[in-house]
Parts: sequence; C-alpha cells; structure tokens
Amino acid sequence: MRIAILGFGSVGQGIASIINTKDLGISIIALADSKSGLINPNGIDIDTALAQKRSGRPVGDSKISGFDIVNKAEYDALVEVTPTNITNGEPATTYIKKALERKKHVVTSNKGPIALHQRELSLYAQENNVELRYEATVCGAIPVIHVLKHGLLGNDITALHGIMNGTCNYILTRMSKEGLTYDQALAEAREMGYAEADPTYDVKGIDTAIKLVILANTIWDWGVSLHDIDVTGIDQVTPDALRLAENDGTTIRLIGEAIPSKKLLRVSPRIIPINHPLVVEGTLNAVTINTDMAGSLTFIGKGAGSLETASAVIGDLLFIRD
Amino acid sequence: MRIAILGFGSVGQGIASIINTKDLGISIIALADSKSGLINPNGIDIDTALAQKRSGRPVGDSKISGFDIVNKAEYDALVEVTPTNITNGEPATTYIKKALERKKHVVTSNKGPIALHQRELSLYAQENNVELRYEATVCGAIPVIHVLKHGLLGNDITALHGIMNGTCNYILTRMSKEGLTYDQALAEAREMGYAEADPTYDVKGIDTAIKLVILANTIWDWGVSLHDIDVTGIDQVTPDALRLAENDGTTIRLIGEAIPSKKLLRVSPRIIPINHPLVVEGTLNAVTINTDMAGSLTFIGKGAGSLETASAVIGDLLFIRD
Repeated sequence: MRIAILGFGSVGQGIASIINTKDLGISIIALADSKSGLINPNGIDIDTALAQKRSGRPVGDSKISGFDIVNKAEYDALVEVTPTNITNGEPATTYIKKALERKKHVVTSNKGPIALHQRELSLYAQENNVELRYEATVCGAIPVIHVLKHGLLGNDITALHGIMNGTCNYILTRMSKEGLTYDQALAEAREMGYAEADPTYDVKGIDTAIKLVILANTIWDWGVSLHDIDVTGIDQVTPDALRLAENDGTTIRLIGEAIPSKKLLRVSPRIIPINHPLVVEGTLNAVTINTDMAGSLTFIGKGAGSLETASAVIGDLLFIRD
Repeated sequence: MRIAILGFGSVGQGIASIINTKDLGISIIALADSKSGLINPNGIDIDTALAQKRSGRPVGDSKISGFDIVNKAEYDALVEVTPTNITNGEPATTYIKKALERKKHVVTSNKGPIALHQRELSLYAQENNVELRYEATVCGAIPVIHVLKHGLLGNDITALHGIMNGTCNYILTRMSKEGLTYDQALAEAREMGYAEADPTYDVKGIDTAIKLVILANTIWDWGVSLHDIDVTGIDQVTPDALRLAENDGTTIRLIGEAIPSKKLLRVSPRIIPINHPLVVEGTLNAVTINTDMAGSLTFIGKGAGSLETASAVIGDLLFIRD
C-alpha cells in the first residue's frame, strides 16, 4: 500500500516512524509539511526526512506543495494530518476532495473537514468507490468509530455519552481528588502539558462538541454542525459543587451526549454516579453507547497523544487494505 | 443472506426473533433443535417455529437432523448455537467442519469447538475461502474479538486482563458491598438467576479460563488449551480479604490474564485498584488490552444474556456479508 502523508507535525512524524519501524507493508511515496514537499515513487527515505524535520528544516522541496502531491503523486491512500481548521476546514477539505475525485482512499485525523463536511465527503467517497476513514478525529486510540460502523452491526444505537476531552477530565479529577479550585487545577494541567496556553477550546466544551458532531453524524447521519449543540464548559464548576456531588456517591464530569428519542445534543458538566463505567480519571477518555440488542457498552482509553493518533490512522489504513 | 440455525434454545430463538423483527436482509432457510429439523429454501415461518417451541413441541420434522441441514441445505452461513460441550466439542465441531468444507461461512456462540479447535478450524475456513467467526463465545455483547482482529490493526497486543464471568463478579461485588460471605453471596446469585444450581463451572474459574484460551489463541495464535492455564476460583475468597483490600483503595476480582513477555496465562482472584477501569460491578464483564501504540484500552458491557449473545451472532453475520 502506497501512501502520501500531508502534514509532518507530531502525528505525521509518528505515522512515518511507525511505518519505518514495523513491517506493515505500507510505503510512503510522498510527504509534505507546510512549506515543502517530497515525491518518490520508490519510497521516501524516512530516516532522512525525520532528521531533516528535527533539525528544523523543511522536509522537502519548497517548489512542491501539498496540492501537487494530492494531484500528481501515485498513492493508494492519502493520509491527511495537517492542523485542524475548524472555521472552514481548509485546505484539508480541498485536499480530501481532490484525492477522492482521483479515486484514492483517504484517512484523516483532521476534525475540521469531518465536523464540517462529513456527509458530503462520505457520499463523495462512496460515489468514487473508495473509503474515507477518520477514526483518529475522535477519542485518539479508542476504536470507537470502528466499533460503531463495523463491530455492532444490526444494532440500533439509542444513546451516546462520552468523556471526550482529556484536559477537562484532568481538571475535574484534580478538583475532585485534591479539592483544588478550577484555576488551580487548570494551572496544574498547563504545567503538566495537558492544557494549552489558551485553554478556551477545551474548557469551554468546544472540542467535546466537535467530537459529538462527528459521532452523531457517523451514527445517525443527522448532518448536524457545531451550532446545533447546546454547549456549557467546565469553567464554572466549583469545588463545593464537586464536594456536594461526592457526598451523594456521584461526581461531575464534562459529558457530551446524544439521545435521538429526546432530540438531545448537548455538552455540559453532568452529575454521574462515581461507579459508572464512564467515570474515568485523569486524561482518559470514555464513551458509553446504548444499543437495542447489545445493551450498554463502554470503551475507555487514551484520547490524545501522537502515538495514539498515529495508531488510529494506521488502523484505518490497514482496515482499508485488508 | 440465507442462514441455517443449529440449536433453537434461548440464543437460537433470540436470533430468529431479531431476524423476524428487524429488516436485516437475512433469511432463515433451515433450523434444527435437538430433536428435529426444518428446511425451506423460501424461508422458514419464524412465528410458527417460535410458537411451536414455546408450546414444548419439536420445531420441525423428527426425520431431519442437524447433520442433514449442514450437509444438504443451501445456506450462505451456518449459525451454530447448540449447547457447549467442553470435553470434545461435539457434535458442533463436526457441524462446523462440514459447513466449512462445503465453503459456507460459519458463525458460532459455542465455546467448545473454539476453545478446543480454534487454530485447526480457522485454517480450514481460510483454505476454503470462507469465514469462521465466534464473537459470541467471549464476553457476550462486547465486540472484543472484533476489536482485536479489525479495530487495532498494526498494534501488537502486549497484555490482556479480563473480568469475563458475570456470576463471579456478581458474587465478589456483593461480598464487597454488603460484607456477605461467599456462601451468602452465592445463594443470592442463585436466587437472582445469575448462578446455576451447580456453580462449579463459573466459581472455579473454568468458564473464565475457556474464554482466556479463546482470546489468547485469537490474538497470538498460541494453540493453547484449558490445561495450559493456571486456574484458581473465587470460592476461597473471604469477606476479611475483601475488607483488607478495600482499606487500601483496592478490591478483589476474578481476573483472566495473558502476558506474552512473562509467558503468563492465569485465572485467579487478584487485588486491583478500585478506580481501575477494569473494576466493574455486578454481572458486567470488562476486558483491558495493552498495546504498543494505542496504549491501554478497556471494553465494558454485558457478558451474557440471550439478546446480547444474539447481537454478537448477528453482528458477525452482517460483518461477513458487508
């Protein structure tokens, strides 16, 4: 399987390292970072590319762009792992469309194009008889999209509840365990590298809402967008509220939930029994799916990390090939 | 997709009801219980068959046997859901072999043939270019085999730990929560219908060990059998031991574990941190898989029940078809 990788940040480099180390039968025949590109039908020299990147230089030729690679390179699957643009999904959406138009499979970790254009892009893939897969966009290493699309065939999904943002879960866990205030726990999350300098995207629930959009559209083909979701973040949660909850055998977590029968699509801090499988600690993610036949199922794992995201991308590639 | 169902107990009836109710594109063209069989290339009348069974009568013609159906009916997939025989796996193993020989897919919930002959039967399926699937043999509705075979492609599985017997987990949960003795909790489990009159198979860890055999052979192709597993049941666990564990923020659960690097294959009551994702309550099952790329993943759900088992069988059938 010949792939082209667009985006050579931590995820792109993670994918390249794994393909370089493990004998997976995948060869990288093109590669682009934001400033340059490389095409070699016989396979890129990954060690050199990684060394180049580590030394702060562009990975290839500044005259070769991502668009050149999408349009000209002879890959079987495009791996689109450029940074997320949640406003209009570009340039990733155009990359993905072009590749599908050329009847190439696409695997992406990019939330922008999928949250904004999942239905249109999936239809386009179908029309062109190729696959568009995006496991890495939701809950990192947990194969939740895979399970929803292939592992529970015949089941109707009647509800979904998820803890899908590790930063928020870390903050709430620390507030709960150590009695920290929100500001103290956020400062600690920053020190640990679990929160960005500007944490808005995470703590206001936007990241969780984007993942909820992707899951709801994947399961029910609702065609919803971020604007359809009622979103409340965790920045108003107090240590007192957590203490009260815990006196009752419950706790507070940021939950993304979708319930078709109630037409509910919401992200908010929720009170939840402390022994519910969904209550995970630290930066873990968890998703509970209710079904008509298989009952209630919970999937827990790491929601972020370059190796975990790379794992999801590689899983998608190998599932397409097999 | 035309299927033949062998075995018309609670699982077989559950599968038939679902196919009768949901529009899944599956038609049942043959059916056998232990005493009789039915073949109808245009599709069995399921309502009549279920009514017949409920009234205590054989489902079909006493001159038609399971072997007749396996050998003569024109199905695409055989659904083998007869009772488990863990001693020699018969007659299910012969049914499965015959169907594979006829180049028919096989889906089974039967632990006997898979625990005893998984490698041989899987090779046989491969040689005949058909599929043998057995999601329903392990952890009921949790699609753990699906995830191991398809959802984590490219990952090396470095360890597996599972709570795979609902009866044991119910007993330990009740001993822990209510301070009951083992005998009291077992009596309660019997009253609730969670334990058999003879609970040996569950409480001595044999059922867990059988599932561990199936998972280990599926993941690593070890070709191991029940005799290769070091098994200790829960019948010696005392309320005092549980209390001591809980004073330390831990609890005791019956864990099946497989760790290749330690050549470890063991079922035993283990002390485990109370907040570990694997610690589920009541009759739930849970499996934690450690991987080289996706980190540690935990899957939680109902481990038994006719609807849940039927869900796993139907998921396998639809995965084969799609």
